[in-house]
Amino acid sequence: MTKLRVHNLMVSLDGFSTGEGLSVDAPFGHAGDRLARWFFPTHTFVSMSGHEDEAVGGGTRGIDDSFAAATNRGIGAEIMGRGKFGPQVGPWRDESWRGWWGEEPPFHSPVVVLTHHARPDLVVGETTFMFRDLAPREALDLATTLAGGLDVRLGGGPTVVREFLEADLVDYMHIVVVPIILGRGVRLWDGLENLDQRFAIEATSSPSGVVHYVFDRIGR
Amino acid sequence: MTKLRVHNLMVSLDGFSTGEGLSVDAPFGHAGDRLARWFFPTHTFVSMSGHEDEAVGGGTRGIDDSFAAATNRGIGAEIMGRGKFGPQVGPWRDESWRGWWGEEPPFHSPVVVLTHHARPDLVVGETTFMFRDLAPREALDLATTLAGGLDVRLGGGPTVVREFLEADLVDYMHIVVVPIILGRGVRLWDGLENLDQRFAIEATSSPSGVVHYVFDRIGR
Repeated sequence: MTKLRVHNLMVSLDGFSTGEGLSVDAPFGHAGDRLARWFFPTHTFVSMSGHEDEAVGGGTRGIDDSFAAATNRGIGAEIMGRGKFGPQVGPWRDESWRGWWGEEPPFHSPVVVLTHHARPDLVVGETTFMFRDLAPREALDLATTLAGGLDVRLGGGPTVVREFLEADLVDYMHIVVVPIILGRGVRLWDGLENLDQRFAIEATSSPSGVVHYVFDRIGR
Repeated sequence: MTKLRVHNLMVSLDGFSTGEGLSVDAPFGHAGDRLARWFFPTHTFVSMSGHEDEAVGGGTRGIDDSFAAATNRGIGAEIMGRGKFGPQVGPWRDESWRGWWGEEPPFHSPVVVLTHHARPDLVVGETTFMFRDLAPREALDLATTLAGGLDVRLGGGPTVVREFLEADLVDYMHIVVVPIILGRGVRLWDGLENLDQRFAIEATSSPSGVVHYVFDRIGR
């Protein structure tokens, strides 16, 4: 059965999943790249970004990569919030924006972009972005159909993940707690009191300093 | 040189170090004992609470106990907030309250209780509670003198720890992140943006589900 999975959702020790002051030049605001530094040396990132030949041994293969690599296995579609697709808000004034990822986005599958402002589908490389104004349950139904028996990835950002957690639609969640104190930004955990009672939770610390949490929905 | 150390400061995954609605019957409010459950099976707790003969093997000796036991080593004095001493606020209307710990408190050393309402010292068993209206730096100076060359423990609660962190007086901090979402209560990390830049931080996950963080002040 299709599962809804979250991978590599990064959060600071004080619970912020992105910083304050997001823009084209600062996609994570004042957080900069501090939430993602554990990810850059991994084989998964190195091969995604085309620097495989340059990195020693093609990137690390340890625990961080083991979690990072799971992101791409068995996924047939993604759901993301509009904020992950780009920095624009409100009606689309500039449809020339084609996402952060250049002409070959790493999704290679349909992506449902949640937005209150629908617009025509956009095909970039092997990825089709579908802009839809849907409630979480409807978005999941659409993505499940598109995934053709594979799983659906919930790509974020934190506000979208929180909405799907509130609707109890998430089956699996991999969260990376990074030992920094951001102080401000978008909180992941707000409004999710007692979330832990719905999940089996395991924590694994990595030599890189981050802690990988796996949340596995109990009873399904 | 005397160090100021924090031990076993427990915090939920969403950053709350105590719950909402504290009272005599609920010292941690709606959090109940959920932040401390990892601690109860340890040898350190079992021997403190006088149940050593009952527990299998006298309590666990693994990683959780290894951290728990460090609390009591080399400490000559403690600083605590009034909220840790008892639930009363404002002027002392009832001086018969002698703390949560019965007639032999586990401190066995002087304890500086920070309060805006000074009152005479209180001797309970081997522990002397000294109620003082002092700024963090002054409290540390007093406790350092009392500790006679040993270290000073900063016993909490979270508001007091935060004040000492803001004043940059903490040398070592052991924090236990418990995989629960409390949703409300007293936050540990508020106002401490970029705290991580002053400390070397290491995380170690435990089979019990908690993660032990060690914060070691850089450069002293």
